[in-house]
Amino acid sequence: MIVRPMQSWFRMLFVWNGSVLQSIIPQLIFMGVLSSLAVLTHGRVFGEKIPLSAAPFTLFGLTLAIFLVFRNNASYARFTEGRLLWGNMLVSSRTLMSQVLSYLPESVDEMGRAHVANTLIASIYALKHQLRETDATEDLVRLLGEQRAKELAHKVYKPIAILNDMRSYLAAPNGVPLKSDMTRWMLDTQINDLERSVGGCERIASTPIPFSYSVLLHRTVYAYCMLLPFGLVDSTEIFTPLVCVFIAYTLIALEAIANEVAEPFSLAPNALALDVLTRTIERSILEICGREIPAEITPVRPYQFT
Amino acid sequence: MIVRPMQSWFRMLFVWNGSVLQSIIPQLIFMGVLSSLAVLTHGRVFGEKIPLSAAPFTLFGLTLAIFLVFRNNASYARFTEGRLLWGNMLVSSRTLMSQVLSYLPESVDEMGRAHVANTLIASIYALKHQLRETDATEDLVRLLGEQRAKELAHKVYKPIAILNDMRSYLAAPNGVPLKSDMTRWMLDTQINDLERSVGGCERIASTPIPFSYSVLLHRTVYAYCMLLPFGLVDSTEIFTPLVCVFIAYTLIALEAIANEVAEPFSLAPNALALDVLTRTIERSILEICGREIPAEITPVRPYQFT
Amino acid sequence: MIVRPMQSWFRMLFVWNGSVLQSIIPQLIFMGVLSSLAVLTHGRVFGEKIPLSAAPFTLFGLTLAIFLVFRNNASYARFTEGRLLWGNMLVSSRTLMSQVLSYLPESVDEMGRAHVANTLIASIYALKHQLRETDATEDLVRLLGEQRAKELAHKVYKPIAILNDMRSYLAAPNGVPLKSDMTRWMLDTQINDLERSVGGCERIASTPIPFSYSVLLHRTVYAYCMLLPFGLVDSTEIFTPLVCVFIAYTLIALEAIANEVAEPFSLAPNALALDVLTRTIERSILEICGREIPAEITPVRPYQFT
Amino acid sequence: MIVRPMQSWFRMLFVWNGSVLQSIIPQLIFMGVLSSLAVLTHGRVFGEKIPLSAAPFTLFGLTLAIFLVFRNNASYARFTEGRLLWGNMLVSSRTLMSQVLSYLPESVDEMGRAHVANTLIASIYALKHQLRETDATEDLVRLLGEQRAKELAHKVYKPIAILNDMRSYLAAPNGVPLKSDMTRWMLDTQINDLERSVGGCERIASTPIPFSYSVLLHRTVYAYCMLLPFGLVDSTEIFTPLVCVFIAYTLIALEAIANEVAEPFSLAPNALALDVLTRTIERSILEICGREIPAEITPVRPYQFT
Amino acid sequence: MIVRPMQSWFRMLFVWNGSVLQSIIPQLIFMGVLSSLAVLTHGRVFGEKIPLSAAPFTLFGLTLAIFLVFRNNASYARFTEGRLLWGNMLVSSRTLMSQVLSYLPESVDEMGRAHVANTLIASIYALKHQLRETDATEDLVRLLGEQRAKELAHKVYKPIAILNDMRSYLAAPNGVPLKSDMTRWMLDTQINDLERSVGGCERIASTPIPFSYSVLLHRTVYAYCMLLPFGLVDSTEIFTPLVCVFIAYTLIALEAIANEVAEPFSLAPNALALDVLTRTIERSILEICGREIPAEITPVRPYQFT
Repeated sequence: MIVRPMQSWFRMLFVWNGSVLQSIIPQLIFMGVLSSLAVLTHGRVFGEKIPLSAAPFTLFGLTLAIFLVFRNNASYARFTEGRLLWGNMLVSSRTLMSQVLSYLPESVDEMGRAHVANTLIASIYALKHQLRETDATEDLVRLLGEQRAKELAHKVYKPIAILNDMRSYLAAPNGVPLKSDMTRWMLDTQINDLERSVGGCERIASTPIPFSYSVLLHRTVYAYCMLLPFGLVDSTEIFTPLVCVFIAYTLIALEAIANEVAEPFSLAPNALALDVLTRTIERSILEICGREIPAEITPVRPYQFT
Repeated sequence: MIVRPMQSWFRMLFVWNGSVLQSIIPQLIFMGVLSSLAVLTHGRVFGEKIPLSAAPFTLFGLTLAIFLVFRNNASYARFTEGRLLWGNMLVSSRTLMSQVLSYLPESVDEMGRAHVANTLIASIYALKHQLRETDATEDLVRLLGEQRAKELAHKVYKPIAILNDMRSYLAAPNGVPLKSDMTRWMLDTQINDLERSVGGCERIASTPIPFSYSVLLHRTVYAYCMLLPFGLVDSTEIFTPLVCVFIAYTLIALEAIANEVAEPFSLAPNALALDVLTRTIERSILEICGREIPAEITPVRPYQFT
Repeated sequence: MIVRPMQSWFRMLFVWNGSVLQSIIPQLIFMGVLSSLAVLTHGRVFGEKIPLSAAPFTLFGLTLAIFLVFRNNASYARFTEGRLLWGNMLVSSRTLMSQVLSYLPESVDEMGRAHVANTLIASIYALKHQLRETDATEDLVRLLGEQRAKELAHKVYKPIAILNDMRSYLAAPNGVPLKSDMTRWMLDTQINDLERSVGGCERIASTPIPFSYSVLLHRTVYAYCMLLPFGLVDSTEIFTPLVCVFIAYTLIALEAIANEVAEPFSLAPNALALDVLTRTIERSILEICGREIPAEITPVRPYQFT
Repeated sequence: MIVRPMQSWFRMLFVWNGSVLQSIIPQLIFMGVLSSLAVLTHGRVFGEKIPLSAAPFTLFGLTLAIFLVFRNNASYARFTEGRLLWGNMLVSSRTLMSQVLSYLPESVDEMGRAHVANTLIASIYALKHQLRETDATEDLVRLLGEQRAKELAHKVYKPIAILNDMRSYLAAPNGVPLKSDMTRWMLDTQINDLERSVGGCERIASTPIPFSYSVLLHRTVYAYCMLLPFGLVDSTEIFTPLVCVFIAYTLIALEAIANEVAEPFSLAPNALALDVLTRTIERSILEICGREIPAEITPVRPYQFT
Repeated sequence: MIVRPMQSWFRMLFVWNGSVLQSIIPQLIFMGVLSSLAVLTHGRVFGEKIPLSAAPFTLFGLTLAIFLVFRNNASYARFTEGRLLWGNMLVSSRTLMSQVLSYLPESVDEMGRAHVANTLIASIYALKHQLRETDATEDLVRLLGEQRAKELAHKVYKPIAILNDMRSYLAAPNGVPLKSDMTRWMLDTQINDLERSVGGCERIASTPIPFSYSVLLHRTVYAYCMLLPFGLVDSTEIFTPLVCVFIAYTLIALEAIANEVAEPFSLAPNALALDVLTRTIERSILEICGREIPAEITPVRPYQFT
């Protein structure tokens, strides 16, 4: 995620870091070359004038707009839902920690409370690693000890396994003796909420926007851009490359951003900063426990957090 | 559902598997022939010039855009709601299983726990078969035994009947003796959630988007496409077939995709992969129980899951 | 509601049953006559040429599109909300029935259980009759007996009165003695959900989309359609009636469909099939009870359910 | 709120009551005069021809459409949310009343039950008066007696104070002795829901759509309308006033309706009929209690309810 | 937030306070100079005519509209969600206060109740200061005493720490002895709701709309505005500056408003009035307690609340 203070309106026009421009340069160069050719040949291909007026572009533009709007809205909805789910994890884990501190009987000592905190944090890290398909071992060893991390290594659904542990620990007679059924239910509700957020993230990660939409939009955008110079060359003449490259920039950039936000758990510049989010949850849980809190995450590149 | 890694922008233009192109070829050939005829006759029918300028197409385009956007949004909303409901089933069944393992008294042995897991998985399979109108017998025999499968054969609402069994089993004095009312209520809440998801899926399956919308959109799309060559032939000349087929492709393809995602439980390439989803739920429940988990579903065709 | 299997793309163009076409024929004939007159007079009225070019239609089109999109979305939102509420009633009543069977003490005999089932079904039928402003007596006599039906005859809010009965029956010491407060609360939650759905349906039925929107849209659609022939006659000549009638068809049909789905509890072809829905709920509740289930509803006209 | 049966398509074109036309006549007359002047002077101001073609209007139209759509959607969302909140109040208060009748111990007599009903109804009336900034005294005296009404007179948040009374009454040992904690919690949940709806209404009433949006839309609409005659006069000639006044009517009327529905608790014709809604809640609560119910509200003007 | 009574349609055109105009004057002057230059040179740059017709602007306009609509909707969604969360805080804290007054045992004296009220109010103020990154010390000292304020000074998540205190106070045996588990759970639910709202606000504050969207929109708006004079100068001649500045005003103003509402917790004129909201919550809680209530907040500038 790019976090960058607002610039003045003028400097904002020339921002480089955080613009999606860097990732679509090849396509824009291609468009520049193509439209320059159109100018040089006056819109002729093999000597034949391509008879495109503005009319077909208005018709094209119709479907293009429909596809772009739909694709962008569907992508952004995935982004905001992903963010909401991680926000819910922060809320549920904080509440669970606070409830454990207030309602668990006195007989549960410091170590028991630290165990709950670590298990909670481990489930969050496990989810991050599952969503990014990275190796969770290091974080799990740090938080749960080597033995438990080893047992978890072969689990497919690690965060769920860890939350399952938490439930057993809080319910089992050999673990923490709860004062009452009601207290158990309060804690179970928060674990349930965490499981719900985990399931929501899995859903987003495993179900992309139907592939056919992407293909259809992609083809329409590029067909539109490639025909554009031949449609404009008669009216905009020498300015054709400038106009075409800029219009292509807006269309291709929007498609590129939509692709990034549609996979909110990836490492792309416009995806969610899961590293920051996990650290925030860790910091907040530890602060509630009165333990020392780790430093905030620093950006991997100027203004860019992952 | 098509699950396919992102291609480079260039190769994406020529993707075949996963594009909806294959299912609308007849219509596109028809459009190609029609627009070629328009070029050959210079837009004349029986010697009479059809006097269509771009103006009516802009007006047509207005309603066409409204219908396409509405139809597509309404269809996609059904798709995402269907996905959400199956995601909720994963969450609720996992939570129920985990609660059963933690909160049921010691006296409930391995077999009792396996019975709960199997009943849970059976309800999911039964829902899949109900939504796809396929025969559930095989899966029910595998999970519940021949006798129970036979009893269920004549039930109209099989998943509900199975969840009803689950509730009786967890509540009945001859079944599992619960420690307390509170525990019963915790488990009942998850069964309730499962019933809610089942009801939601039935609702989507039994209530299509009002048929009149489909007819109206369909007619507008085809009327627009068929008149298009006669409107464009004067300005785009020999390029008319290319332009018309491409515009027709975008419109007809969008209608086709919208039709597929509007019935998210069908076997169409852009519908939900219910086989994968049921297997995922099965795997996750069995992993929580510490039992062996079956392999993941493989695609029926390259990149295509059902 | 129209339930009709998908046709081939070609036959779909000529569908009669389920198209809204049948209800707007007078307006279309009027449009045909008007545009024919425009052709005959070359766009003159009393010898004066009406100087309408395409320009004003683009401007008109703007507001027309805004009104149509808004009206259609608002109407469809009412339709889907109505459907959701009836779906919730199915879920809540099934769950309540299942809970009654599992959790009520043994001392409640067959007759008590049948009484609960009948009361539940009666509340659903009463809601249907209230929403459609039809006479509920017949169904209430069948389900609750003549005496109770008579008492209910003068009630304004019949479904609520029946659900109120249900609550008293399950709570009252002379009725069903509940094992515990917790069980009472579980059952009360489902009754509460039913009351919530009833209230939601009443809200939709009693609050139309603000009337001024309808008037404004209606006037804009007809003004647009009536001026259209005079704007197009110079460019489309003899084809004017065809083009105008088709454009008028798309606009007036959309308004007509939107009017129908905006009142989802009416008997219109695109409204909800409340008869089917009530029967489904009845069937599902009776199946849970292990009682004989009535047949499904048959369509009143080809493909049309009410 | 206007409640009016659907007219035939022809009579609907000339509806007067319920159309927003009556409130925007001065602006339309102004537009008529302005466009007539443009026709008389052939688009000249002080002898100078104003060179406006259709092109700028298409560009203008773009932003105008964006503003109108946004403004209208945001306004209508406030209207539907306001309606939803009042619907929730109906549901919660009915449920609370029904629960009080079923679950309160026998020792609470007729008078106690009537007291609960009256307090409930008083909170609804108090909310109506707070939202409309009218004097609640009369209704409070009628329902709660003169003394209590006097105590409430100086309260800023009257509905909350009344619901607070209700909570104390149901919880306090000197008031109604509840059988159990569970019952108290059931009743408290409904009071909580009522407080939630009250808070939601206060939120809508106290937070308008950001003022800058209104200013921006207003200026764009009027600038567009005032320039329109000069842009159209060359093509539509003598018809300019007719076309301009009609386009202005659609734009200004939409803004006017949007302004009305954006404040759903006002007395405007397109706002919610709070008088009807409060009376409906009163009637429904009293019917549950078996008490005599007051008559329905009659319209203040033909078809118009407040 | 601007709160201003509606003006007559004519005076509304010249509103200054509350219009976003004041903050975009430099850009508009720049546009005025640029378009005047275009008129003086007849659209020539270094003697070369810039060949821009209306056609490219229609194509540009397409993407511009998509970006503006998306950006504005996404921003406004953040505004309304922020408002909703603060509304929920009002509801939850009022309910919690009311429950504490009704359900806490008699043994909890005036001072205990005042302590709960003050802690509640302090958490709201702490959230406001956290969101606005201002110093909370003064308010915390006033409400919680100097010692507690000092302890909180080093906390990163102050509102959560204060709510955590509240939970301990209501649960701890040395604090308030609760009558029962059920009562504890009722109070805990409200604290949980407050934590949920706090987490929601943190989410909005820490996750901006993806930066790339802002850059893309910004560039498109300014490129469009800067090219506009050259596209219009041939048709609108001397009127070009007027038309261009007005169109630029609508576009740039919309971007500016969207930027403001996208950060609903800032001090911008179109952000939320957090000072008013915190004071309202304080007033309402104190009124429930029967304590003296502070005066309402007065605007910092005419019509402007922060």
